[in-house]
Amino acid sequence: MKVLIASRPDRPQAVAAGRDVAARLRAGGHDALEVPLDGAELAQRAKGAELAVIFGGDGTMLRAARSLAPLGVPLLGVNLGRLGFLTALSLAEFDAAFADIAAGRSHCEDRTLLHARLVRDGREVASTHALNDAVVARGAAVRSIHVEVLIDSEPFTTYWADGLIVATATGSTAYGFSVGGPVVLPGSQALMFVPIAPHLSFRNAVVLDEDQTIELVLRDAPARLSVDGQEERDLAVGDRVAVHRSPVVAKLVRTAGMRPFLTLLKQKILKEGGGL
Amino acid sequence: MKVLIASRPDRPQAVAAGRDVAARLRAGGHDALEVPLDGAELAQRAKGAELAVIFGGDGTMLRAARSLAPLGVPLLGVNLGRLGFLTALSLAEFDAAFADIAAGRSHCEDRTLLHARLVRDGREVASTHALNDAVVARGAAVRSIHVEVLIDSEPFTTYWADGLIVATATGSTAYGFSVGGPVVLPGSQALMFVPIAPHLSFRNAVVLDEDQTIELVLRDAPARLSVDGQEERDLAVGDRVAVHRSPVVAKLVRTAGMRPFLTLLKQKILKEGGGL
Amino acid sequence: MKVLIASRPDRPQAVAAGRDVAARLRAGGHDALEVPLDGAELAQRAKGAELAVIFGGDGTMLRAARSLAPLGVPLLGVNLGRLGFLTALSLAEFDAAFADIAAGRSHCEDRTLLHARLVRDGREVASTHALNDAVVARGAAVRSIHVEVLIDSEPFTTYWADGLIVATATGSTAYGFSVGGPVVLPGSQALMFVPIAPHLSFRNAVVLDEDQTIELVLRDAPARLSVDGQEERDLAVGDRVAVHRSPVVAKLVRTAGMRPFLTLLKQKILKEGGGL
Amino acid sequence: MKVLIASRPDRPQAVAAGRDVAARLRAGGHDALEVPLDGAELAQRAKGAELAVIFGGDGTMLRAARSLAPLGVPLLGVNLGRLGFLTALSLAEFDAAFADIAAGRSHCEDRTLLHARLVRDGREVASTHALNDAVVARGAAVRSIHVEVLIDSEPFTTYWADGLIVATATGSTAYGFSVGGPVVLPGSQALMFVPIAPHLSFRNAVVLDEDQTIELVLRDAPARLSVDGQEERDLAVGDRVAVHRSPVVAKLVRTAGMRPFLTLLKQKILKEGGGL
Repeated sequence: MKVLIASRPDRPQAVAAGRDVAARLRAGGHDALEVPLDGAELAQRAKGAELAVIFGGDGTMLRAARSLAPLGVPLLGVNLGRLGFLTALSLAEFDAAFADIAAGRSHCEDRTLLHARLVRDGREVASTHALNDAVVARGAAVRSIHVEVLIDSEPFTTYWADGLIVATATGSTAYGFSVGGPVVLPGSQALMFVPIAPHLSFRNAVVLDEDQTIELVLRDAPARLSVDGQEERDLAVGDRVAVHRSPVVAKLVRTAGMRPFLTLLKQKILKEGGGL
Repeated sequence: MKVLIASRPDRPQAVAAGRDVAARLRAGGHDALEVPLDGAELAQRAKGAELAVIFGGDGTMLRAARSLAPLGVPLLGVNLGRLGFLTALSLAEFDAAFADIAAGRSHCEDRTLLHARLVRDGREVASTHALNDAVVARGAAVRSIHVEVLIDSEPFTTYWADGLIVATATGSTAYGFSVGGPVVLPGSQALMFVPIAPHLSFRNAVVLDEDQTIELVLRDAPARLSVDGQEERDLAVGDRVAVHRSPVVAKLVRTAGMRPFLTLLKQKILKEGGGL
Repeated sequence: MKVLIASRPDRPQAVAAGRDVAARLRAGGHDALEVPLDGAELAQRAKGAELAVIFGGDGTMLRAARSLAPLGVPLLGVNLGRLGFLTALSLAEFDAAFADIAAGRSHCEDRTLLHARLVRDGREVASTHALNDAVVARGAAVRSIHVEVLIDSEPFTTYWADGLIVATATGSTAYGFSVGGPVVLPGSQALMFVPIAPHLSFRNAVVLDEDQTIELVLRDAPARLSVDGQEERDLAVGDRVAVHRSPVVAKLVRTAGMRPFLTLLKQKILKEGGGL
Repeated sequence: MKVLIASRPDRPQAVAAGRDVAARLRAGGHDALEVPLDGAELAQRAKGAELAVIFGGDGTMLRAARSLAPLGVPLLGVNLGRLGFLTALSLAEFDAAFADIAAGRSHCEDRTLLHARLVRDGREVASTHALNDAVVARGAAVRSIHVEVLIDSEPFTTYWADGLIVATATGSTAYGFSVGGPVVLPGSQALMFVPIAPHLSFRNAVVLDEDQTIELVLRDAPARLSVDGQEERDLAVGDRVAVHRSPVVAKLVRTAGMRPFLTLLKQKILKEGGGL
């Protein structure tokens, strides 16, 4: 079995765990390949991989998903700290989970990715996938921005807000949750958007149909585009961010022993959450 | 063409409009039949009907949908006052819309119905469809109730709240919106739930996968079950309300000239809404 | 020292604790008098009391405050279960606290009470104090009501909502908190109001100036008036509930060893709260 | 009467109006002095002024209040566009209002200012007044920051959020309103704080007692301090922003003909507000 191993590079513990697991898998006869989380040569090296094991937290998984999901590699997240929504397996549980996978006792859960395109002066100047969200928000100045929303090219409304989040089901427990958006169970293919601190305007989220495209047009600057809270760039007035569901999905490997999403939700929101 | 005509009975204007339209359709060679909005003999009389024209407001459409959607009759709502989400056609626009329908220039938009079953002491004691929502809420006493939530038979959490709303996409602009729930565009088959005034607990809604069942178990009384804000009954401690997406859908007739949902949403929420 | 002892009557443990403490105080030479939480003869019996010790939870304290605060008796709440905002003392801590009080090492914290008057057909038909809140809300029917709000006799707006809460600072951690209202630190004399599930309307609370009167006029029925979540009555269309800060305050006894409000807030909202 | 005239410098219409009014006041025998909105020599020139007339919008008034309120000069805001909460007088209404003021038929409404001090490494490095709010928020990176809150030097909690707003009553209709904070009627001297997009944490505001000090300690960077949405500076990890009610108030001149606050609130929030 060809297995990619990628670790959060700034966490020595994650790097060591990845190295150790790689060595053990090789000793077991597997083709275990340590790779970076992204970069130019990843596609080449990932060819034929049946599994990628990611050591780190949810942020590491988001990064891995953006680069590996388009290559079709199933992902397994292993967390060395507090379990996350995407890294529900502890290091102690890895061996049992891998044995299940190697024996064919696992399946893949498809997670919807969004695809965001940045259009400036009529030309696409950037494009990316995201597993959580794409956000158009104010820049360094603590001041609202005007963002016009179009749904399937029809003007909907203009928000005067700190920003607007477009999220997948996976992203619904992240930034969108903080501004009152719904938790969308992970089987859903729908995208949603929810404003951040809208002035004199309703705060309810809007859950789109699965095949709708939402466009955010920036009517003020300075502002920023943030993807999964990890990739950012400055936006100029008139920039248009068009977001739709990607035909590509992220495949998350699941075995019988792994915590289901509702268990994680209860753990992370009902137990760890709370506080004024 | 066999056409049912039903009107809000306590609005003379609606009754008169229904009578007048029925007469005109008959004069035009159609089999136009005036019927009540619900009742025992409706199923018999509705047999073979290709269309039901409903005169009234959104509440009238909710009532008609619960009785006629299971019979498969497509619905067309005509509003004599301010347009509603389900009654987007004015009386003045009816003739043009009917001409389109009679000429085959229309289509049906499927709206998800929920199916709610009330189980007491292990026995189903009532069951109903709803186009908007099923709500388990406090009774006359202005006091929170404990409602346990299960998703696909797995215990999720227990809310201490004024109540819990389980809504369809169609219902997302109604009661659920008032407590911060998302607007779900009407093509969605997903149900969601959202608590009313939860004490020391998060207020975010949860959007379920399309085939999940949610159960609400009442841990306190007195409480009430309310369906579409129209049918109510008292609940007893231990009562279980199980809600899932119905295999039956409500078919709403649409012609090219009718306002699309997003236009109605803008009109009703951006224009008519607002206010402190 | 004349001390009143009152206990939550339906909790045998509270009744026993009250009896025991009364006996011990008498043995210590104090004039300890067991009294009911309210009722006609309470005023007579409370005459000259320097302290009332209340055994129960926050609900018991609310009831005691409505009857004893107007008589000027300082209140000390002793909780036999989980500590409350108003019952921050456990039974184990009582003796030390009482020793401080008897030795003059205590002070009274003034808590604002609201005074609500129900006016029907121009006549006042009822009037009461409340330590937490006065709420005008829907009755048994799960349906919004229209409530017009006037501030100092000036029409402000009409809410279409499940109800409206008028709360004191003390009540700000109770019902109002559940619908998003602010926590108001207990020194404040201001009242606030906050709508419950307002339809197509803002959900923000409004904090009044200390001497303003708010009137809620019921434009629909059936509806209910609820005081501190304990006293309820039916309202008729046109009923007017006028609420202002009472000249009477509730005096809560505090000793050096008792938990301050912020500690309780952290405990109850940051630790016990949370959950989806 | 010595009258200062200050105008929003980047609005030619405001500058022209200021010039014209200054000329007319001088012709009427008044000592009308055109001054900038702030700056080093303003204090000198403002000496003895009995009134400052400000031409612009609410933002212009905020700027004028920060510089002129500490000098004790009463402020009158004249709006050339849509009326604001602080600029409730149109140019057409100015003459009548000024006549009232000159004749002694006016009074001053005291508005609470907050005073914010930035403490770095134990030393105060900056200090300012604000009429609306002081905000500690994320910088250009669209990422939550950790902000610890202390109330009267007691640790309260740590928010993981986009930021935290500390607002006066005057500021309660501004940024704080957008994140669900209460409207506090303008007579109140209390400050409040409200988090922006707090993660897994309650979103309710906290209204402080009038004499409490709130400190925000930055546990992450980059972040920004924003005062009245106008003055900004970068913050470093460990920076402490201490905010309390200023002994100085802003005096807003009011005449009988001017719109009261509740009228403005209804106009701006109930009429102009709304929208999804």
